[in-house]
Amino acid sequence: MMLIGMFDSPFVRRVAVSATRLGIAFTHRSWSVGKDAELISAYSPQARVPALVLDDGEVLIESYTMLDYLDDLVGPERALLPATGIERRRALKLVALGMTAVDKGILPVYERIFRPVEKQYAPWVERCQRQAHAAFAELEPHCAALAAGQCLIGPRPMQPDYTLACAATYLTEAAGMDLTRHPALWAHVQRIEALPEVRACYLPFDAPQTT
Amino acid sequence: MMLIGMFDSPFVRRVAVSATRLGIAFTHRSWSVGKDAELISAYSPQARVPALVLDDGEVLIESYTMLDYLDDLVGPERALLPATGIERRRALKLVALGMTAVDKGILPVYERIFRPVEKQYAPWVERCQRQAHAAFAELEPHCAALAAGQCLIGPRPMQPDYTLACAATYLTEAAGMDLTRHPALWAHVQRIEALPEVRACYLPFDAPQTT
Repeated sequence: MMLIGMFDSPFVRRVAVSATRLGIAFTHRSWSVGKDAELISAYSPQARVPALVLDDGEVLIESYTMLDYLDDLVGPERALLPATGIERRRALKLVALGMTAVDKGILPVYERIFRPVEKQYAPWVERCQRQAHAAFAELEPHCAALAAGQCLIGPRPMQPDYTLACAATYLTEAAGMDLTRHPALWAHVQRIEALPEVRACYLPFDAPQTT
Repeated sequence: MMLIGMFDSPFVRRVAVSATRLGIAFTHRSWSVGKDAELISAYSPQARVPALVLDDGEVLIESYTMLDYLDDLVGPERALLPATGIERRRALKLVALGMTAVDKGILPVYERIFRPVEKQYAPWVERCQRQAHAAFAELEPHCAALAAGQCLIGPRPMQPDYTLACAATYLTEAAGMDLTRHPALWAHVQRIEALPEVRACYLPFDAPQTT
């Protein structure tokens, strides 16, 4: 399979990290939604990333669809989310909090990239950042409750940990958010960021050229 | 369980439609993210909708988490998405296209609601609308290929149909998008909208009061 998109996108990155951890080989095309839009749109008409091109030619969009597929490929024993029941529900809630933070926290980045300064609106930026911080604040007690060496849903890093790390690192670098306001979360993110599968899929944020 | 949020939100609505179709009873709190933010935040700190309060007190956020839970509750035979394999992958792709349309098409609605006129920026609005239309354009051939009476992944309406209808109706009413540009899709949406479980969960769009 072929993963299209740069690792400075938290959506691309959590797919890459998950595939790497699961030992699922993929070709990586580090194409920018800015300058490489034409290359991307040959596979995905909307030129969005990530796009995951499967060996049968099918192209998946939206990172949660890809993560669902990777988990399905390896089966429930190795999957990065529990298969069913209350364990799955709780894990998905943690993942959803991380993604909510990104979905809100990315809007101020769009504000900066896609608008002239005179059309930027500080109250909107602040509203989005408040919402992103609120999602991290909900994750903070989960991180604070972790015993030494534990991860969010057990002894090993799973999807809630990877998604959180991708979200937090992105929002720190691209949106200038100060996540040390959530100290236990920040400490957990640093631990996850140090893992080889996470390091292997890191790229410092570089705003796409939109002109 | 208790579903919080108004049916003029496509995220709330697809959860309500799915629960109704599956015969899963829920109490509905038609609270507005504008004037009822305090009521909502008693359950969900970020005051976002939908929030799904389970009988054990757990509160789910993000509609895809709720749909995953509803499918898990009823089991694979009755679930609104296939459980595994290529059928699941294809169904999730269709759902993702509908949600991409909403995720992009909702941004011009936010533009109108959360900003003064002088801070609104037409090129951004047009960019978002183009992206939403592009997602619908990808769905159009799937709808055009349907035999009479068929739905997107089989003879019965499933999650791709419900999500598409909720997305299309919302963007028509709230964002003024003209979806008759995608005629087969529009015809399919009208068919799905006529179903009793979909009618039962309809509310005309009413912009939240944010001041």
